Amino acid sequence: MSNYISSTEETPINIINVEELEGRVEARMEPGAFHSIRGGAGNEKTLQRNITAFDDIGIISRTLQDIESASQKTSIFGIDIDYPIITSPVAAQELLHVNGEKDGMKGTNLAGSIYVASTYTNFTIDEIRQANPDGNLFFQLYMSKRDDFNDWMIDKAVKNGAKAIVLTCDAVLGGNREWDNRLKFQFPVSFGNLAEFYQEDSGVGLGIATIFAMAKQNLALENIKYIKERSGGLPVIIKGVQYPEDALAAIEAGADGIWVSNHGGRQLEGGPAAIELLPEVAKAVNKRVPIIFDSGIRRGQHIFKAIASGADIVAIGRPAVYGLNLGGAQGVQSVYEQLGKELNIIMMLTGCKSIEDIKTKGKLTNLK
Amino acid sequence: MSNYISSTEETPINIINVEELEGRVEARMEPGAFHSIRGGAGNEKTLQRNITAFDDIGIISRTLQDIESASQKTSIFGIDIDYPIITSPVAAQELLHVNGEKDGMKGTNLAGSIYVASTYTNFTIDEIRQANPDGNLFFQLYMSKRDDFNDWMIDKAVKNGAKAIVLTCDAVLGGNREWDNRLKFQFPVSFGNLAEFYQEDSGVGLGIATIFAMAKQNLALENIKYIKERSGGLPVIIKGVQYPEDALAAIEAGADGIWVSNHGGRQLEGGPAAIELLPEVAKAVNKRVPIIFDSGIRRGQHIFKAIASGADIVAIGRPAVYGLNLGGAQGVQSVYEQLGKELNIIMMLTGCKSIEDIKTKGKLTNLK
Amino acid sequence: MSNYISSTEETPINIINVEELEGRVEARMEPGAFHSIRGGAGNEKTLQRNITAFDDIGIISRTLQDIESASQKTSIFGIDIDYPIITSPVAAQELLHVNGEKDGMKGTNLAGSIYVASTYTNFTIDEIRQANPDGNLFFQLYMSKRDDFNDWMIDKAVKNGAKAIVLTCDAVLGGNREWDNRLKFQFPVSFGNLAEFYQEDSGVGLGIATIFAMAKQNLALENIKYIKERSGGLPVIIKGVQYPEDALAAIEAGADGIWVSNHGGRQLEGGPAAIELLPEVAKAVNKRVPIIFDSGIRRGQHIFKAIASGADIVAIGRPAVYGLNLGGAQGVQSVYEQLGKELNIIMMLTGCKSIEDIKTKGKLTNLK
Amino acid sequence: MSNYISSTEETPINIINVEELEGRVEARMEPGAFHSIRGGAGNEKTLQRNITAFDDIGIISRTLQDIESASQKTSIFGIDIDYPIITSPVAAQELLHVNGEKDGMKGTNLAGSIYVASTYTNFTIDEIRQANPDGNLFFQLYMSKRDDFNDWMIDKAVKNGAKAIVLTCDAVLGGNREWDNRLKFQFPVSFGNLAEFYQEDSGVGLGIATIFAMAKQNLALENIKYIKERSGGLPVIIKGVQYPEDALAAIEAGADGIWVSNHGGRQLEGGPAAIELLPEVAKAVNKRVPIIFDSGIRRGQHIFKAIASGADIVAIGRPAVYGLNLGGAQGVQSVYEQLGKELNIIMMLTGCKSIEDIKTKGKLTNLK
Repeated sequence: MSNYISSTEETPINIINVEELEGRVEARMEPGAFHSIRGGAGNEKTLQRNITAFDDIGIISRTLQDIESASQKTSIFGIDIDYPIITSPVAAQELLHVNGEKDGMKGTNLAGSIYVASTYTNFTIDEIRQANPDGNLFFQLYMSKRDDFNDWMIDKAVKNGAKAIVLTCDAVLGGNREWDNRLKFQFPVSFGNLAEFYQEDSGVGLGIATIFAMAKQNLALENIKYIKERSGGLPVIIKGVQYPEDALAAIEAGADGIWVSNHGGRQLEGGPAAIELLPEVAKAVNKRVPIIFDSGIRRGQHIFKAIASGADIVAIGRPAVYGLNLGGAQGVQSVYEQLGKELNIIMMLTGCKSIEDIKTKGKLTNLK
Repeated sequence: MSNYISSTEETPINIINVEELEGRVEARMEPGAFHSIRGGAGNEKTLQRNITAFDDIGIISRTLQDIESASQKTSIFGIDIDYPIITSPVAAQELLHVNGEKDGMKGTNLAGSIYVASTYTNFTIDEIRQANPDGNLFFQLYMSKRDDFNDWMIDKAVKNGAKAIVLTCDAVLGGNREWDNRLKFQFPVSFGNLAEFYQEDSGVGLGIATIFAMAKQNLALENIKYIKERSGGLPVIIKGVQYPEDALAAIEAGADGIWVSNHGGRQLEGGPAAIELLPEVAKAVNKRVPIIFDSGIRRGQHIFKAIASGADIVAIGRPAVYGLNLGGAQGVQSVYEQLGKELNIIMMLTGCKSIEDIKTKGKLTNLK
Repeated sequence: MSNYISSTEETPINIINVEELEGRVEARMEPGAFHSIRGGAGNEKTLQRNITAFDDIGIISRTLQDIESASQKTSIFGIDIDYPIITSPVAAQELLHVNGEKDGMKGTNLAGSIYVASTYTNFTIDEIRQANPDGNLFFQLYMSKRDDFNDWMIDKAVKNGAKAIVLTCDAVLGGNREWDNRLKFQFPVSFGNLAEFYQEDSGVGLGIATIFAMAKQNLALENIKYIKERSGGLPVIIKGVQYPEDALAAIEAGADGIWVSNHGGRQLEGGPAAIELLPEVAKAVNKRVPIIFDSGIRRGQHIFKAIASGADIVAIGRPAVYGLNLGGAQGVQSVYEQLGKELNIIMMLTGCKSIEDIKTKGKLTNLK
Repeated sequence: MSNYISSTEETPINIINVEELEGRVEARMEPGAFHSIRGGAGNEKTLQRNITAFDDIGIISRTLQDIESASQKTSIFGIDIDYPIITSPVAAQELLHVNGEKDGMKGTNLAGSIYVASTYTNFTIDEIRQANPDGNLFFQLYMSKRDDFNDWMIDKAVKNGAKAIVLTCDAVLGGNREWDNRLKFQFPVSFGNLAEFYQEDSGVGLGIATIFAMAKQNLALENIKYIKERSGGLPVIIKGVQYPEDALAAIEAGADGIWVSNHGGRQLEGGPAAIELLPEVAKAVNKRVPIIFDSGIRRGQHIFKAIASGADIVAIGRPAVYGLNLGGAQGVQSVYEQLGKELNIIMMLTGCKSIEDIKTKGKLTNLK
């Protein structure tokens, strides 16, 4: 792992709000590694908008709703989770913590939720599972130009008990990450799955562009069927959907879930906030399959707004790995707890006793 | 009262505008105590928006209206007041002044208005009344999980001549006050009514979360009837209403007044400004009961805008207690006078001779 | 004139843009006097909006319009002027220059335009006329509570050849000028007309509130007829109109011109920009009488936007007296020339050969 | 060329984004010369808006579009180009580089595109062509008051193989360039074509106002026919169109192309961003002739947005000459490559395989 020194923290973390974690992490990491995680595409206005656009949506408080307490428990594909939150696939978590994805998954499972392992993990999916024999795991696939890699990778995911395959579709090539270019960032850490398949230490010294060069560009609807068959019928979730017709086409082609996302503002520059795109997609999907939402979730109020806008659950990327950096698995768990604590207040003040209540009686108003 | 040192000022204060008082108070108070009063929920954007949203509403000046002078006198529940302003319930006013609520009520009455005493006053309601044998008093109730407390508290209010009971409904649990968490604020002052009932000095060292933990969560429509009966038929005002249907349900369940408010931005985070919610609620209420409005009033123009948007009177929280800190009872009176002076100019320039005129001929325009 | 030292400059001034003059003047004047001229009501957001709201209106350039040159000549009440600009009444111009209104009128006439003398000039209207035997003069009337003053004042205006009487209607009392209050500003200069009528040096040491206290509050439609008769039939212009129905009522009561203005943001706080109010008023007036517009004009583009929004001519207050401070009469002329130079470019680029062309073919678009 | 020292760089340049070039160029140039290139009209809000208005338009990412690669090749008037970008006419490029327009054209041709030479080049059009015997050249005409100049100039363009004549129509006089006025900028370089025609070194010491004074003001529709005939039938492009009816009139009068532009915010002040005007003009033109767009293009996303809004190709002015300053011809080429690299990412992420695809399936959404 070259000379890169990663975090070894293992502790619950004190959180005032999740937005503040970014500054705390920045103070501890090498700039190149930090910005490779934090950064977005182009002028980063989509990245910023992902968060600020939530301010254009107002939640309306409700009174005399006879609410004693609120439950955040929900489920997806039959898997019960304690919060309407799962952990987004984030590549290269060894940059953030020596235990990388092993602790990422451990913390997520401590919080009673589902960990989505990226294709581009530093630890192999076997190592991640070995460190977490019992937790809930989804596998996120970046399809390769090489079919044998795809076969091998899906087989691995199935063998390690992944309960769904997430196909990322908004990254057929790398986004224009100015900070990676400015700092000439090269990964100082190896990518476990790639290294094992290619029989070489394929990560160290690679830039993000090289990584993406291995990836398949021409993703198409037919890939859904392939993944489903190869995985023996696992649910397939299409990640990166922004356009209603694309969601419908994917469902028609067999998709079991739609993940509305703009990749945390890291891929397409000049786009809307992800939350601005959610209502139209949700309207089109019309509850036929579950909708996962990510890109910009930093507060409990954001979760409420996303669910009241049509999502079933949300996913967190940077917040989870910032927690990982600051406290290892327990840090990840602290992030879930903070978001859960904040969401609980919103639910109580809006008279929502359950996640289902947010969907049906949560009142939003346009503040633009 | 531990080592906390509170203000002992007793003097009229010089006010250029009420917004500037916050900085003057901040310079005199311990940060924890100050922010417990000033602070809002979450990222405080709702708190800020409460004030800035008034800038999105334009008042239109009128010409040749044959206006000699304007009167701000009005009344609620048959009580005549000199300004269309009353004092909002604010907990723990001993943080601001050694005479706390005693002076808060005294200053309000000097201004010819109505003081709303909180359940969470530092002085007991008996002490507050004893210091002000003749003034107008409403009592704000935070219902407790214990029925005997509620009975006892309402009886006390009645005995002390409260002319209405205000049931706060937007605080079934505490808001996410980041500054309280950041500074780990614990009240250095005792809560008079709680201390008397629980036979212990229940305030000192408690955090706001503990206070709220004693409170009843499952407030419901039926509580209105209980309060009305227990109080021997006093008017019941539902405070914290944001949603038209909630206002209508409350009125149907017996409410005699609707208090539109978002608790000064201290409870629900991610919500609209209170003033943005007022017109819809007022339209639904349709003059069946009086509407009180608070959250963001800092200027005479805000009062005009709130009344022209459907309120009958407004309430001030932070402005009143900032006046209390800077000048005791006379400071409170100065705040009323400044707001009245500003409102008078607006009324004269819009040709409104009375509060009723503001409601019927006050012209607003959307500046968004 | 107490110890106050005013400007003695007599020189053309170099102007990059008129907005920059404010800073240059601020550097030369006593704060109290400067802010009494610059300042606005309340938080000054209406004052700022008066200028920034022009940015929400876009002018559309035109091509191949066969335009050789553009003329800014126009007329009002049969008086020909070289620019579609006149000088607004501004009180107490001796604060800005030792020759005060005498030079204000001189500079305006050098620019081929009309000077509107305020009731609250430092020099008497006789002195102003004496210094400018030939120029175009309108007289602005603040009606007094005393009828004999009004008679005397109008007679004076007529005797001195005023060609119209401007009745200011948006100042039945003084605005909430925070800077005047903050700096406890008292006029160090005498008000000529008042001093002569009241037989005392009535200006020195008076605050703006005292000045307004002498003024008549209950201005009404019937005053129009009185002024017209007393002045022997001079055109009467109603200044401060913001509301369409008020314009119509004034016209019906005999008004010969409508002056859309919010008094430079100095009277009503919390209002729209004047330019935002102009289109509705102009639509109601429907060319029955000329419309003068002021409040926020700082650039040639603003003049174009105001005329394309329904004004016939615009008026400048602060820009003119800033020019007066920096260069005396020649400074006022320089301001006219700069605005004319800027407007000429806009007219040429939009294919408008005349002021009438701006009204009929000037294209605006809403940029909000 | 007086004492002015211009750049002699000849090197590819490292670009993170094109917006950053402005600061790098500013650090190397004399302020007067720099601002004569960078500056805009009046308060420069139109200049700023040209760029920021792109942020009000959102691009929507597409998924599973089966896209292997994207081609940016397109053509105009039968000329094939590698990017949907050409180089705008920019006067006086010797200010930026000792080889001025010679290198400007060389760099543009290295990028496989078309160079539009201004009438106000420092090198004569013969010199520019001599240095680039084979590249694609358009000629931009500022018509003169003297017909013999126009004849001579068009003949020269034809003789040097210009493939189209661009008639600039939004500059019948110079814009209000405050920075030129503030710094009293005079060109330290000669204007080749003018010097040759007038038989004198007509450039050195002239201000922009003098240059424009030679120009014809009353451009009219009939000029189109004249240019077409004099040039022996070359396509005539009308540059500076903002208004739909003007585009239609020009087409009816024989125009072969419409160039939507606000001259980089340098002419009309107080106008919309050029991109805000494009959709209406494109709708009117309705594909009858090609549309070129400039004013504000700084990123690949801007090119995508302009084409999806109705443009066929875009033009770059400041970005090209900033590249020229920093790296000569190779610097210009680097700018094209950077924009192409950015546009490629957007096309891949939106499933657009060709420029035609952007026009037909590129999805935009209004983010205001």
